[in-house]
Amino acid sequence: MTAITPTVSAGPLPASIKIYKPGHIHPDIRVPLRQISVHPTSGEPPVTVYDSSGPYTDANAAIDIAKGLPRIRESWLAHNNDLAAYDGRHIKIEDNGFVTGDRLTPEFPVRNRPLKAKDGKAVTQLAYARAGIITPEMEFVAIRENLGREAARAKLERDGNSFGASVPDYVTPEFVREEIARGRAIIPANVNHPELEPMIIGRNFLVKINANIGNSAVTSSMAEEVEKMVWAIRWGGDTVMDLSTGRNIHNIREWIIRNAPVPIGTVPLYQALEKVGGIAEDLTWEVYRDTLIEQAEQGVDYFTIHAGVRLHYIPLTVERVTGIVSRGGSIMAKWCLHHHRESFLYEHFEEICDICRAYDVSFSLGDGLRPGSIADANDAAQFAELETLGELTQIAWAKDCQVMIEGPGHVPMHKIKANMDKQLAVCGEAPFYTLGPLTTDIAPGYDHITSGIGAAMIGWFGTAMLCYVTPKEHLGLPNRDDVKIGVITYKIAAHAADLAKGHPAAQVRDDALSRARFEFRWEDQFNLSLDPETARLFHDETLPKEAHKVAHFCSMCGPKFCSMRISHDIRAEAQKEGMTAMAEKFRQGGELYMPLKSEKAALAASGDDF
Amino acid sequence: MTAITPTVSAGPLPASIKIYKPGHIHPDIRVPLRQISVHPTSGEPPVTVYDSSGPYTDANAAIDIAKGLPRIRESWLAHNNDLAAYDGRHIKIEDNGFVTGDRLTPEFPVRNRPLKAKDGKAVTQLAYARAGIITPEMEFVAIRENLGREAARAKLERDGNSFGASVPDYVTPEFVREEIARGRAIIPANVNHPELEPMIIGRNFLVKINANIGNSAVTSSMAEEVEKMVWAIRWGGDTVMDLSTGRNIHNIREWIIRNAPVPIGTVPLYQALEKVGGIAEDLTWEVYRDTLIEQAEQGVDYFTIHAGVRLHYIPLTVERVTGIVSRGGSIMAKWCLHHHRESFLYEHFEEICDICRAYDVSFSLGDGLRPGSIADANDAAQFAELETLGELTQIAWAKDCQVMIEGPGHVPMHKIKANMDKQLAVCGEAPFYTLGPLTTDIAPGYDHITSGIGAAMIGWFGTAMLCYVTPKEHLGLPNRDDVKIGVITYKIAAHAADLAKGHPAAQVRDDALSRARFEFRWEDQFNLSLDPETARLFHDETLPKEAHKVAHFCSMCGPKFCSMRISHDIRAEAQKEGMTAMAEKFRQGGELYMPLKSEKAALAASGDDF
Repeated sequence: MTAITPTVSAGPLPASIKIYKPGHIHPDIRVPLRQISVHPTSGEPPVTVYDSSGPYTDANAAIDIAKGLPRIRESWLAHNNDLAAYDGRHIKIEDNGFVTGDRLTPEFPVRNRPLKAKDGKAVTQLAYARAGIITPEMEFVAIRENLGREAARAKLERDGNSFGASVPDYVTPEFVREEIARGRAIIPANVNHPELEPMIIGRNFLVKINANIGNSAVTSSMAEEVEKMVWAIRWGGDTVMDLSTGRNIHNIREWIIRNAPVPIGTVPLYQALEKVGGIAEDLTWEVYRDTLIEQAEQGVDYFTIHAGVRLHYIPLTVERVTGIVSRGGSIMAKWCLHHHRESFLYEHFEEICDICRAYDVSFSLGDGLRPGSIADANDAAQFAELETLGELTQIAWAKDCQVMIEGPGHVPMHKIKANMDKQLAVCGEAPFYTLGPLTTDIAPGYDHITSGIGAAMIGWFGTAMLCYVTPKEHLGLPNRDDVKIGVITYKIAAHAADLAKGHPAAQVRDDALSRARFEFRWEDQFNLSLDPETARLFHDETLPKEAHKVAHFCSMCGPKFCSMRISHDIRAEAQKEGMTAMAEKFRQGGELYMPLKSEKAALAASGDDF
Repeated sequence: MTAITPTVSAGPLPASIKIYKPGHIHPDIRVPLRQISVHPTSGEPPVTVYDSSGPYTDANAAIDIAKGLPRIRESWLAHNNDLAAYDGRHIKIEDNGFVTGDRLTPEFPVRNRPLKAKDGKAVTQLAYARAGIITPEMEFVAIRENLGREAARAKLERDGNSFGASVPDYVTPEFVREEIARGRAIIPANVNHPELEPMIIGRNFLVKINANIGNSAVTSSMAEEVEKMVWAIRWGGDTVMDLSTGRNIHNIREWIIRNAPVPIGTVPLYQALEKVGGIAEDLTWEVYRDTLIEQAEQGVDYFTIHAGVRLHYIPLTVERVTGIVSRGGSIMAKWCLHHHRESFLYEHFEEICDICRAYDVSFSLGDGLRPGSIADANDAAQFAELETLGELTQIAWAKDCQVMIEGPGHVPMHKIKANMDKQLAVCGEAPFYTLGPLTTDIAPGYDHITSGIGAAMIGWFGTAMLCYVTPKEHLGLPNRDDVKIGVITYKIAAHAADLAKGHPAAQVRDDALSRARFEFRWEDQFNLSLDPETARLFHDETLPKEAHKVAHFCSMCGPKFCSMRISHDIRAEAQKEGMTAMAEKFRQGGELYMPLKSEKAALAASGDDF
């Protein structure tokens, strides 16, 4: 066993400690936050930031992948009388793609009996929210989201354009409950994922990002996938989708979930397809249903379900430049066409809801017909499917299931807002979860950037979660560096969106970093950045010496041309001159702008030798 | 001499040849374009793209840096009777920062007598445009911009939102003349830069990008700077700014200009400051004026002039989080404060115009008070300066000088459009030229991305040229890789903007690449991308074998899960079924969306065992 136990990236980020805030309604919850200290000369308090990285960045946590993370929700769930443990489904040989012997990834060493709702009860956050109950998960996310707002409340003016979102000044547990009850936010939190640190996805909360991982028939192993998950959340991934196909899929997923403090999403269709040997036409509702239960028992927090790919939409894709580019969408389209009938996902949607309701697996209604090129953006197939997703949302809500809606894809900038507007209109404000969108097709190798542009914009318009795209998109499987670049790019997009929406405390970190920059606190500038390692490395490439980290200039301009250094001289001068008062005078009124000509005329008239 | 002659990156890009289109009005002009061939199986013609890379990518060109590029405009200028050659200014020891002996970069081996307007004549493109003259430069850019439109004219529907820009279906030389005459576009083309392949900057043309290079007191040499210029235009830089400070500034610039097929911009203040030993207070109009003439004679195509930093605006920056972050702006502010008077740039602006008018150096009116942080965006100082830039624009136009306006900086997404709107309003639609803007401050090391988001948006809104930001921004001097990443990121932003504005032919390349993607023409996908080398490299990391480049799947999903492969199966099926006709039927009308409930009811009624 020891031999295969992977080691993962652990340890605090630079200048950071982990702090935990307790609940009030639920005093036993401990909400993790990251505190970044700044240099004492700044006279500033530490900067507290949202922290998705889990115990891996806690210097006091003992990490052992073979044991899994602490089961923090276990005691919360123990109080829930709607739940009962049972023996669960037996692992079958097809669950791991028929692999045996040496090539089989070992089972995760610890096995727990799964939980499930008793007697058709709904155990979803939505059901409890509707019943007026504030769950520990709800209070947890309220504290987590509230970050910095208390301190900022007094001084920060609200700014931004939220396009109709209602980001509150302060997040109360009751606000969380209301948003969930309205279907406008979800907390993906399977009852069988007690290791989870709950998080919320909704337009009135911080914009979140998802990182995809997953092995394929072509490459990668369990150790790599667990590390990719840990690595992705270290840099800010809020949820992780395991898009594995190929062998060992069940066992690898178990290792991932048992070590994941973030929600794990999957596309159950991928595993179902493996179980029928990769032949789309051989898929059946029974195989699929069995896969849903298998994954629900493991603790998958949300399922991508491509139930919106309807038989009569498929012809609409035939003249597209890039056809159907969603794996799930194309598989279902092929099945529908072969059998000349509606997909089993659509036909059995209510039964799928019953399963999700019993474990609180959230829906991520898949956009199987999303556009795969600029040419196909916002076409009839895409928008027809979106309307069906709106219909399915209502069905899921009627079953007390939590729902988010997946969105495109490849969309030029001027067509992005229409996607958000239509989604809000037809899906009853269920959270939107988009891939990018990519704003041009011409830059393979840089699609984290082509899509980061679109992601920032659609996040601003109201998308609740952004699915990352890595530099390898369209070309290959992301490695560790690609995962990091994808995550950082999407943290930028999400944060830019929060700023533009007018999130009341988002700018705290920008301001702290900018002050550090202006005051030549290089170490603080690195530590407050999204990627301290890279910032430091880039600085040291030109000015490696330690002494330069206190230098009052930098390598770009050298000392004589340093605008910030000169600005300090100007301020010193200004203090002598009472310039602050002068500025105030100008700001109070007074004509700031005086045309040159008239002044020259005045000067000329006054006899000045201009 | 030979020892120091640098070698530069040369040779065609993959699958590309250089073609040249002749003029009609001026038959001797040869407009370079790049033709990318695609695989014969596609049955498609080559894709022709805009090409800023100059002779360096022409397989037939003999490149010798010590000789400089062919002086293609020399014969055009020879016909201009408003011009006369003269002896020019002598190089002084301070022009190269007082460096002598071994440390002096050798002079460029060839010296030509500079040209200058006779008797106060205006030799600017604006003057000729106003006089109704279509210059060779105007016809050159018309052909260059027109790219692909003729072919696309018949089939492409216009799409997009141009926010009031008027991008024509077809660019005529007369349209170019009109846009220049209105001041809405410029062709930066110093009469002493005959090596230039003219390009146009204006809101009704393709969005352009600028790459900054430059040595500093801290690092870098002539060979590096020439290579950086060649490297930047290889990947798509439309203009290059030489922001050198430090020593050898005159001689390095000469090597750059003599080898530059793109417009070269500078900030003359930097060299002037070197001449006075780096002491801002010691700057004088005389030193500055001498520097302008020195650089105008060398062939600098546009000057950044921070004449909008007025004495009474400086107090407005004192309470900013990041003060003044423009080097030029801070130097001038310090000067103004020290002397308690308006800057010599502002006071002598008309004389500066007279110099620019005599050589056709375009103005890039600098935003010395641009915001350096999210906190300072769109503040009183910034917008007061912008109004002054509007005033200066009118003065320059009255002198027949070409003008563009520099813009910020650090601006959150929701405050970007106000910048464009105000610039259009107060600067009479003179082209806007912005740095980014950066949409958040929290990602040093990734500011090409934080700014690429803002650049794409402001380009869409109407900015004519985007100044790139590299990953090293705020941290160090960009190396070769950083320059490339910066350029590619900004090509993405500019192209995304062109698409969103509804440029009539921009989508041609996206569509060609997407078709290649869908048809598994991997080589075509690489070759049509902005960075073929990186695309190929990334693909080969996972699937290195040559055979895989014809594989009908890729490494992300493997063969069974390939959506595009399945889409082809679907199309094959569709052909059998006459599905195209079916799609047409749906598109013609017919209710696409049918609710599940009613269908289920119908099915139930029909006795189907649903």
